[in-house]
This record gives sequence, structure tokens and C-alpha cells, in this order.
Amino acid sequence: MTSQSKVKIAIIGAGPVGSLCACFMAEYGYDVTIFESRTDIRLMQTTTGRSINLALSERGIKALQFVGLDNILIEELTEPMHGRMIHSTDGHNYSIPYDIFKKKCLYSISRKELNGVLLTKLEKYPNVKLNFSYKLVDIDFSSKKLTFQTVENQQVIILPDIVFGCDGAHSIVRQHMIRLPMFNYSQSYINHGYFEINLPNTKENVLTPGHLHIWPRGTFMLIALPNKDSFWTCTLFMPMDKFPLILESGKEEILSFFNKHFKDFVNLIDPENLIRQVISGKARTLISIKCNPYHVNDSFLLMGDAAHAIVPFYGQGMNAGFEDCTILNQLLNEYDHDLKTVLRMFSLRRIEDAEAISDLALYNYIEMRDLVTRKSFLWRKKIDKILYKWFPQKWIPLHSLVSFTTIGYKQCKLINQWQDQVIFRMLILFSLFIGITLFIVLTSIILK
Amino acid sequence: MTSQSKVKIAIIGAGPVGSLCACFMAEYGYDVTIFESRTDIRLMQTTTGRSINLALSERGIKALQFVGLDNILIEELTEPMHGRMIHSTDGHNYSIPYDIFKKKCLYSISRKELNGVLLTKLEKYPNVKLNFSYKLVDIDFSSKKLTFQTVENQQVIILPDIVFGCDGAHSIVRQHMIRLPMFNYSQSYINHGYFEINLPNTKENVLTPGHLHIWPRGTFMLIALPNKDSFWTCTLFMPMDKFPLILESGKEEILSFFNKHFKDFVNLIDPENLIRQVISGKARTLISIKCNPYHVNDSFLLMGDAAHAIVPFYGQGMNAGFEDCTILNQLLNEYDHDLKTVLRMFSLRRIEDAEAISDLALYNYIEMRDLVTRKSFLWRKKIDKILYKWFPQKWIPLHSLVSFTTIGYKQCKLINQWQDQVIFRMLILFSLFIGITLFIVLTSIILK
Repeated sequence: MTSQSKVKIAIIGAGPVGSLCACFMAEYGYDVTIFESRTDIRLMQTTTGRSINLALSERGIKALQFVGLDNILIEELTEPMHGRMIHSTDGHNYSIPYDIFKKKCLYSISRKELNGVLLTKLEKYPNVKLNFSYKLVDIDFSSKKLTFQTVENQQVIILPDIVFGCDGAHSIVRQHMIRLPMFNYSQSYINHGYFEINLPNTKENVLTPGHLHIWPRGTFMLIALPNKDSFWTCTLFMPMDKFPLILESGKEEILSFFNKHFKDFVNLIDPENLIRQVISGKARTLISIKCNPYHVNDSFLLMGDAAHAIVPFYGQGMNAGFEDCTILNQLLNEYDHDLKTVLRMFSLRRIEDAEAISDLALYNYIEMRDLVTRKSFLWRKKIDKILYKWFPQKWIPLHSLVSFTTIGYKQCKLINQWQDQVIFRMLILFSLFIGITLFIVLTSIILK
Repeated sequence: MTSQSKVKIAIIGAGPVGSLCACFMAEYGYDVTIFESRTDIRLMQTTTGRSINLALSERGIKALQFVGLDNILIEELTEPMHGRMIHSTDGHNYSIPYDIFKKKCLYSISRKELNGVLLTKLEKYPNVKLNFSYKLVDIDFSSKKLTFQTVENQQVIILPDIVFGCDGAHSIVRQHMIRLPMFNYSQSYINHGYFEINLPNTKENVLTPGHLHIWPRGTFMLIALPNKDSFWTCTLFMPMDKFPLILESGKEEILSFFNKHFKDFVNLIDPENLIRQVISGKARTLISIKCNPYHVNDSFLLMGDAAHAIVPFYGQGMNAGFEDCTILNQLLNEYDHDLKTVLRMFSLRRIEDAEAISDLALYNYIEMRDLVTRKSFLWRKKIDKILYKWFPQKWIPLHSLVSFTTIGYKQCKLINQWQDQVIFRMLILFSLFIGITLFIVLTSIILK
């Protein structure tokens, strides 16, 4: 019996981050129990309308490696996306590859499938216990007492040594932490929301595979992510106050809106199906969560969306959550499983990076819905491409830094700021050079 | 029976803002019921250690005028403070008056006394009902159902038409609102805390009356506010991590700390009394709260600290809360008691001002504990004084704008920024003038 096996770990939430965190702790021999408020996701029907697609990238893959799930997941359950396919208003389409030289890509995966694989993996550990339909109703932070309500309306009290709050953006663990002194917290909704539409992959459906498709329209956009199950998950992002104009309008108005802005998309879907999905749909909100610290006392730690929910525009929400597990793992080794220190250090090491990806994700919405159509952006991409080709180790564009490396998010932001400065100075020098050359040429002509 | 008398108003919290808000609504004939989780403050013993002194200024006075309580409160229950008395480290004291020309001042008042007067006033309205020891435990926002727990452990359910959440910085109403979509919220603790000491007004006690006394020490400070009951409420503000060094140390260390930094203060208090208060004391935290919006649906509104708790360094917390009542009153008249519109407009009209005073209050801590000892600050005060004398309507210094006018806080901030710019430009012009004069003088000497 190792010393770890005596430590009782409670993990709140059996979503992707909670499940992966449980795998990590189980690998080290801890006595792990998971409590999930909902039923087993593997037994649930897929619900449309909620964000059901995730984009797995380097940080997520690295964390999955530790539990040996990276290859099987990528090979069997994902669809690669090598770049963005931009659908212009004039019907012209063009591809912006994510990583033209190193050929790296994002992997589109269904949240349900991914979560299912992790849960099935968990069931194989003898030191893990899974409890579904256990709703956390109370926490006493000083005595570490957790009170749950089961589906049979019974109260269950447990007294674990360590609690990981992995219960998502609307975390109950965090709801209790908010009342504690010196716990800094902010939740901010952006003024834009989203609404999902399933696009079946029929014979007539000719969306180019291997891409994340974007219809950027300035203040709003439609995107489409490929699925293994031969359909595309399409999401319409737009200002919240504009949704009623579509969702609550008549069939004619709905078709006219889609025809006006997403003509080639309408050609891919049965109009009746589109109208049915829109009429039965509901606009959903997008929230950013920031906390500081993530830990309470020596025994409670928030991870994943519970600690740092972000808007989905960088496809980094789950990757950042999975990276939390990698960081936790690093700290367990660095501090020789002294959990008290590990929890405290987790807050110190993680908060700045989480705030950086939160900002980057907000910025990326503007890039996706608007900048990708601008000449200045496409020129910047070209300069990036040339410098990346010449200095593949030194000049990595921002999107690649975030999606295809494990460099801290804050560092990615700083590197990008430095790149902006370098390009700005290069432009100044280039202008100077042109100016001086012109001066010399003109002077020599005049003096001749 | 007026149409107002049919509208059932529930006010959560019988603190100063809840009580005043109830007075306003009672004046208009609404059917008002107040629910307070604690017992009647008038029956409670004064507890030391918690912030018990408030500085009443223009905005608070204006709101009290509406219910005819301004004069009686000022005359019978307050101690005027005409300026700040700065106690330097070298033992030298100097006064910085608040408003040298218009002779305006702040009024120090005990929170308990003020609250008591408002409650006694409330009891005289036939359309007001006061319930103490009613703890709000649940809110159903769609059905407007409020559930309370009484001191006898009974559940009481009420169904009001409108709910005002005036239950302070740790508001239960707000705790429930946090879970609603599109409710933006942030709570941030500053790294500094406070601890209170009572200084009896003995014969030997020679703190100059009519002042707010400050011992500014760079990263920390001691302040003293006068009380009607012949004692001073003294507050030590400092970084949270420094408190254990004092509060948990021995008698010698406590005396040595106060002797080192607040020599003249120690001379005013019995050392045994000081040590007793310090040893039994506890450092308290300081929080800033921001929400957006303040209202939910057509029937719930946060007011006072529940909506916008701020740090206490501008003495504006209660004044801003009382001003909320004035704004509410203006909107009731503007929109002819259409409460649905009034609640929505309250958010629109109030949020930016509340955020401005929150920022100003944070800034004022730096001014009080540090800047007041700097030459540059004192010079700026002198320039302000001259311009204020010459243009008493046009050039009102920031502190006077905030404390002695009812100009919106955001506007006060903007005026101050404009003043900074004017002074900066004047300095540039003055330097230019000196430079040119010197150049002319030197040239004429050389050419002679």
C-alpha cells in the first residue's frame, strides 16, 4: 500500500477535465471518487443545440499521452482540420492553412465520444469509484465536509482529504468559494451568443473536408466543424439582441436571412430541415470566468472551466483544461506529492496563463468574424508565413504558438507582441529605405 | 387608495440604504415590507472592530433631505470634519482643508445611530412593515417568490411585486442573481485590510477636533474619525500579510511597532488598552463589487453595497448608496411610477457612475497613505487652491466634486482628467516662457 493510496481524493464533475484529472490521480495510486450531478453521458442521447464539438490540439494531446489515450482518440474518433476555409460574401472561397510547413492540424471531436472514452478508461482503475446523479449541495471548507443529494433524494456526506472542483463553467464548488474572503472572482458575458445547426453530410453536400469552415460577416459569423458521424456541426454566432429577429421570425424571414448572408450554405441543406432547426432553437450565452486563487485552504482546487471558462473562439477551452492536468502532474513530481504545496503552486503557476488565453479567445472572435476578410490581416499572414519558413524555430505565428506548442499562453501573447513590434519596425525601416533611395535617385537626376 | 398602495414592495436589508429606500417608497404610498436577517440594530450592542463610522457628505445629505432627516441628523448626531490633519513621521502635523473657500465639510456619524434614526422614522409610516431576523434563503425570479427562514426556524414565503436588494456587500439577493444568464459580476479583494482601535477622548487626548486625522506611512496608514460619544474610531490599514506580524505578536512588539510609526498616537492612549485591543483584534478584508445590470426582469433591483460595494477611502460608500435612492426617486417621477421602466433605467443610469467611484476610492487609498506626504501632491493642491479661488464655479478640485457636489461620479473623473491636462499644459507654457525669456536675456547680454 503506497502512501498515496491512503489519500482520499474527491473529484466533482465527470466531464472531460474531471475524468482526465481522475485518470492522472488514479495512475499515481490515489483513492479517487468522482461525483457527477448528471447521469452517465454514455447513456444519454446526444442533445443538439449545445456545444457538442471540441477541437483537440497540442496541449490536449500532450495530457492524453500521459494516460495513453492520444493515438487511439486521434485515429478513431477525430476529423482533422488543416486550416480555415473562408466563405466570402461574393461566393469566393479561400483556405488559410493553420501550419503550412509543419503540417500540424486541429482535431475535431465529439464531446460525448471523448468523455465516454475517458469514463471507460476510468472504470478500469481499481482505485477509482464513479458516482453519477450525485448533486453537490453543500461544502464546509474547514471540515472538508461535502454534502450530496442523490437521485433518490437521499443525503450523502463524505469527508475527503482533497477536493478537485472540475464541475464546469457553472461550478457548484466555485459558487461556494465565492462566499469566502479573499476569493477574487469575475464572470462576464459577451454581448454575443450562439445557436447550433446540424448539417447532414449528404451526397450533395460539398463542404471541403479537412477544414474548419467560416462565413465571416463582420459583426456575426457562421462556422462548421466536421464530425466522424458524417455531419457538420454549424454554429451561428451573433449579437444576442439580433437572435429574436431570426429565431422568432417566420419561415420566409429565416430563409431570406440565410440566403442573403450564407447563400452557399443554404444550397447544402434541405430548407425545411434548416427552418425546423431554427424555429426549435434557442440562443445560448457565452461566458468568461476568472478566479484568483484557484485553491482554498490546503484541500480544494478548481480546474478547467470551473476555474477559467473562456469563450470558444480559440478552440482552447478543453485544451486548457487538459493542460491543467499536465501542470498538476508536473507539480506532483516537483513537490514530491506534497499536495498542500501542489495546490498552492497550481494557483501561482496557472492563473496568468489562463487569463492570457481568456483574452486571446476574445480577440480571436474578432479575427474570425471580421479580420480574416481584411487585406491587412491577409498581408500580415503572408509576412508571418515567410518569416516562419525562414526561421521555423524562431518565428512561430500566434495561432501555431497557441494550438501547436505547449509554451505558456502568457508567453505566447508576449511573443506575439514582440512579433508585432518587429514587423512594425521592419515596415518603418523599409519605408525609410524607399524614401532615401528615392531621394538619392531624384537628387542624382536633378544634379545630372 | 392610490394605485401605489396596491403595489407590494419587498426590501431586503434594513441597513442605512434599505431603510432610506423604504422611506422613499413609503412616502409615495407603496405597500412596503422590509426583511432584515439580523435583529434590530437599535437593540444591539455596538461591536468594535467592524467599520462603525461613516462620513456623510453632499450626496447623502441630499437624499436625507427628501425624508426631512438631514438637519436633525447633522445637528444632533454628527461631528464635522473640515479637513485632513496629517501626522508626519518627524512629529510635524499639518492640516489640508477640504474646502477652504466654501467651508464645506464632511460629517462623521456612527452607522448605528444613523441606521436607528432611519428605522424609527420608518416605524411612523402606516404603510411600512418591519421584519427582523428574517433570513432570505431562496428566490424564484420568474414567479417572484421569496423564501425566508425566521429565527424560530419557520419558513415564510412571500410574493411581492417588486424586490429591492439592499442587503449589503455580501448580498444574498445578488448571490442568487449570479446564477442567472447575462448577469455580469466581479468581486475583488484588495491586498490590504483593516483593523479598528477605539481611542477614548480623555483630558490628555489632544487630537485636534474638526479633522480626519491621518498618519500616512507609504504602504500603510492609521486614520482617526471623531465620534459624538467622546471617542475616536481609529483604523489601521495595511497589507493583509503584514497583520499577523502585529496582531499575533507579543506586547513588546505591538508597542514597539506603534512607537516606531505612530509615536504621537501612542502618547494619547493607555498602552495596556492599546495592547488589549490589538491582541483581541482581527484583520478585516476590503472588497470591491461590480455588477451589470443591477436589475433582473421587471421586478428585482440591487441598490447600495449589494450593487456596488467600494473600498472606504473616499468615504463615499453610504453616500453612493443614498444617492441610489435619489436616482430612484428621479426615475419614479420621470417615468411616472412605471416601475418596469424605472428598474431598467436605474441600471442604465447608475452603473457607469458606480464604477467611477469604485476606481476613485481605490485611488484615494494611495493618496491618503502616500501622496499626501509628497511635495508634488502638495504643489498640485496649491495650484488647485489658487484656481478654485479665482474660478469657484469652474475649477472645483476632485475631492470637492466628489464630496460636496452631486455631479455624477463619472463626470467628476472626467473633469479631473481635464484639470490634469490644463495644469500640464500650463506647466509646458510656463517652461517655454522661462526658456524664451532666458534666451532673450542671454542673447542680449552676449550681443552687448
